Amino acid sequence: MLGPQMWASMRQGLSRGLSRNAKGKKIDIAGIYPPITTPFTATAEVDYGKLEENLNKLSAFPFRATQATVEMTVSMAQVGADAVMVVTPCYYRGRMSSAALIHHYTKVADLSPIPVVLYNVPANTGLDLPVDAVVTLSQHPNIIGIKDSGGDVTRIGLMVHKTSKQDFQVLAGSVGFLLASYAVGAVGGICGLANVLGAQVCQLERLCLTGQWEAAQTLQHRLIEPNTAVTRRFGIPGLKKTMDWFGYYGGPCRAPLQELSPTEEEALRLDFSNNGWL
Amino acid sequence: MLGPQMWASMRQGLSRGLSRNAKGKKIDIAGIYPPITTPFTATAEVDYGKLEENLNKLSAFPFRATQATVEMTVSMAQVGADAVMVVTPCYYRGRMSSAALIHHYTKVADLSPIPVVLYNVPANTGLDLPVDAVVTLSQHPNIIGIKDSGGDVTRIGLMVHKTSKQDFQVLAGSVGFLLASYAVGAVGGICGLANVLGAQVCQLERLCLTGQWEAAQTLQHRLIEPNTAVTRRFGIPGLKKTMDWFGYYGGPCRAPLQELSPTEEEALRLDFSNNGWL
Amino acid sequence: MLGPQMWASMRQGLSRGLSRNAKGKKIDIAGIYPPITTPFTATAEVDYGKLEENLNKLSAFPFRATQATVEMTVSMAQVGADAVMVVTPCYYRGRMSSAALIHHYTKVADLSPIPVVLYNVPANTGLDLPVDAVVTLSQHPNIIGIKDSGGDVTRIGLMVHKTSKQDFQVLAGSVGFLLASYAVGAVGGICGLANVLGAQVCQLERLCLTGQWEAAQTLQHRLIEPNTAVTRRFGIPGLKKTMDWFGYYGGPCRAPLQELSPTEEEALRLDFSNNGWL
Amino acid sequence: MLGPQMWASMRQGLSRGLSRNAKGKKIDIAGIYPPITTPFTATAEVDYGKLEENLNKLSAFPFRATQATVEMTVSMAQVGADAVMVVTPCYYRGRMSSAALIHHYTKVADLSPIPVVLYNVPANTGLDLPVDAVVTLSQHPNIIGIKDSGGDVTRIGLMVHKTSKQDFQVLAGSVGFLLASYAVGAVGGICGLANVLGAQVCQLERLCLTGQWEAAQTLQHRLIEPNTAVTRRFGIPGLKKTMDWFGYYGGPCRAPLQELSPTEEEALRLDFSNNGWL
Repeated sequence: MLGPQMWASMRQGLSRGLSRNAKGKKIDIAGIYPPITTPFTATAEVDYGKLEENLNKLSAFPFRATQATVEMTVSMAQVGADAVMVVTPCYYRGRMSSAALIHHYTKVADLSPIPVVLYNVPANTGLDLPVDAVVTLSQHPNIIGIKDSGGDVTRIGLMVHKTSKQDFQVLAGSVGFLLASYAVGAVGGICGLANVLGAQVCQLERLCLTGQWEAAQTLQHRLIEPNTAVTRRFGIPGLKKTMDWFGYYGGPCRAPLQELSPTEEEALRLDFSNNGWL
Repeated sequence: MLGPQMWASMRQGLSRGLSRNAKGKKIDIAGIYPPITTPFTATAEVDYGKLEENLNKLSAFPFRATQATVEMTVSMAQVGADAVMVVTPCYYRGRMSSAALIHHYTKVADLSPIPVVLYNVPANTGLDLPVDAVVTLSQHPNIIGIKDSGGDVTRIGLMVHKTSKQDFQVLAGSVGFLLASYAVGAVGGICGLANVLGAQVCQLERLCLTGQWEAAQTLQHRLIEPNTAVTRRFGIPGLKKTMDWFGYYGGPCRAPLQELSPTEEEALRLDFSNNGWL
Repeated sequence: MLGPQMWASMRQGLSRGLSRNAKGKKIDIAGIYPPITTPFTATAEVDYGKLEENLNKLSAFPFRATQATVEMTVSMAQVGADAVMVVTPCYYRGRMSSAALIHHYTKVADLSPIPVVLYNVPANTGLDLPVDAVVTLSQHPNIIGIKDSGGDVTRIGLMVHKTSKQDFQVLAGSVGFLLASYAVGAVGGICGLANVLGAQVCQLERLCLTGQWEAAQTLQHRLIEPNTAVTRRFGIPGLKKTMDWFGYYGGPCRAPLQELSPTEEEALRLDFSNNGWL
Repeated sequence: MLGPQMWASMRQGLSRGLSRNAKGKKIDIAGIYPPITTPFTATAEVDYGKLEENLNKLSAFPFRATQATVEMTVSMAQVGADAVMVVTPCYYRGRMSSAALIHHYTKVADLSPIPVVLYNVPANTGLDLPVDAVVTLSQHPNIIGIKDSGGDVTRIGLMVHKTSKQDFQVLAGSVGFLLASYAVGAVGGICGLANVLGAQVCQLERLCLTGQWEAAQTLQHRLIEPNTAVTRRFGIPGLKKTMDWFGYYGGPCRAPLQELSPTEEEALRLDFSNNGWL
């Protein structure tokens, strides 16, 4: 999985690609994005060949702006770029008040040549970016949206509601609550599961956008367990293992992450087969 | 607010009323229910007159089975009844494994002459009833559903999905995620806010049930802050204060709950007025 | 294990016994107390005969005021008494501010004919009684101390320090941090492990009180794992099982608590045998 | 405050200095260490002059191996060194099992030319290094101890107990539980407060080591609130502000950390003056 920094770079790629046709807040980030994994060789080095291979396969699905992401991600891997998707700072989380977080993101957005997307992922950071901070930051011309992985749909609805006068876009951070997020006003998702069930996640998007809620519900139901399996339950080792099953290159993890045990792998498989995906 | 026990009794009332026309799992609990507050006199005694008054007012809205709830709640107050809406046991939560919770609810449901609704409210209990336990319990003929107040819509979707072969009904425990819950298959809600904005909550239900998702979204947005205000943020003191504003009898709280400070009351008012309800 | 209420009654017994020779805050509660379990028969009724048997055995150790506790606990079981050891209210914990908790305990202490001991047990209540509330409450003439089971020795030291001008006594709520609590000024402990290793816990007390810290450290070390085993790890089922091993009557647990599995029982045994107690 | 990486470097300095006279696990790390702050200029650059100034002042106290720390910290600031005090990896904490953490530290220790000290700081990482992992790692010849900032003295005692056959040293990560840690077998502390009350913290060490527990208790009590103020309560901004008061150079913080508000600064001052330090 891309660390926060590489992620930032990929998003930069995406944004640059888009910014050719748009200015500042006008960039439209609606749609489905797979937060791609970082493939490693057996000796724990980044495998750029496999990265490109995966990206080519993913580009077959109507992910938003995938091609620009593809191009820029590959070149980003060679150049090292500034962050535009910015995870909440969290090491000294006891002092990360709303004021501190607003100050931090404002400074980043002021200086960034390209738009900034906020990234809230409490499971990893132990910190929830307060809604009042999001509302304040949504008024910055260079902050265009938020990826929220917390899974609290009340919060997602509230963010949409309180930023409705801004050109601010809310993205669900996981497939588990993607339908619900669309239902309360989100415009898309950045979803790990899209790395393996990309067509299905994009199909869920389409059903939501065209108001076919009943079919969407049925599909959403079948995606919850696979999604939890490749995120909270088995994390990146689970996602990579599944990518191997579905014809992508997942490959080894890098320590301290450990490969799945046979028991875990069996449970992972069941989460997919029980829902008809394997 | 009714404590878990009184709540249980009210639900018993509801269930008895319904059971005249139905047997076992056939009882339909879909719809919107207000978890009514317990009105106290100035000397902290239960004020039955005010309770009846409030119930009469609430019966004007199409809450599901309100009349039976009204009748049975009043008589329940006089007789003392067994619990049918059963909150998770939680004092020794470190030992409340799935197995222990399954055993507990199975025993209750085996012995209860009336149907049982599970009640999961982690904010109060510090415990999340595991989904696998819910799935197992959904197969019990005398367990007909769950009220889930945790706000995790991924979990709500998963419970609907995994119990789809049972006659099991999932109710949202709060208005904040009511639309999202309907979107993933819940059949209703037990919502504190329905005590003050009963017509609006029932309107939200109607919009969801008739597929008017856009209008539902707009209404849902305007209910989030008022709902949070009378639940997580200001709790029962907030709910009762608001009931006074909206023509119900809220009245005093009972210690250890404290009345709102003037500053809190002002913030509470803003959460309603900012959304056009005051 | 005695629920909060029965516990309260036992402490009432203790206090009454002591109050014959003392007035108000003069009651000395220093020493070691076993929070005794409630023995049940095979049909889940309280087994008073076994309760008395256990108490007789425990009275062999120099627990503080054990005899009064014994006498009063037995009679308490027959009469039902007011609470004097009062656990923090916690169901609506979101509203349990310092002010609310101070109000609650002040009211209880005002009306209680016998002294009150505060009881802080965050593992069960999900709530930490704030130190500033403890300091305020320590000034009440009818509040004589606190049992703190949180295990935060910084907090225990601070409570001793900030109440040093009051006649207020701090008791450790578990053996795991008993030595450390003595080192920072606590006067004793209410320790589940004292139900099975009563002599050893009292020996630890003696070593601390007579300044034999090296020997105390060695003994403390050997008590940590057994203590964790009968509290956090295996809870009351673990404590009761161990009581059976050590010649007391532990007997069955009451649902929803479950008996230990064979694997758990083996792990429990190791926690005692690895430290030389079995 | 030194980030994990700079900290690592400082410790490396310390270790190198000591390793001249010792091999592998024979390095003695008992004593008091101030985790020094990183001084910044007004333009947020590291101020090496001020760093040296502070270190000169701190060297007046009998911190263990302060001189080597001084020399190596300064040169480390110029060279950039490998980490030897290693904080637990935590971003993907859901997958940081005991096995993963053992694997991680073993690899680091295998490859590090200098000894490794484990660093457990759950308030920042949201992760507690399991005791069983610590016990396993204590057997590695290149892992010499742990700094534990969690404040759980039961855990500290257990780690001392379970590693007693190894040459493994446990250090308290904060002054708040320093006396208690000595009482259960720790050999020292790495204490932020030592940056401002260095003489007093070393005095506390001396009292503990010479068995003057009563005087130690009195001094410990007076250090709790100041310590909490410069750690949990006001963090690094609080520590730096206090350093300014006590004749060191604290200077500005670096974003996202914010300077204290006047109200916070007043509260910070009270925590010191109420205990007789200002």
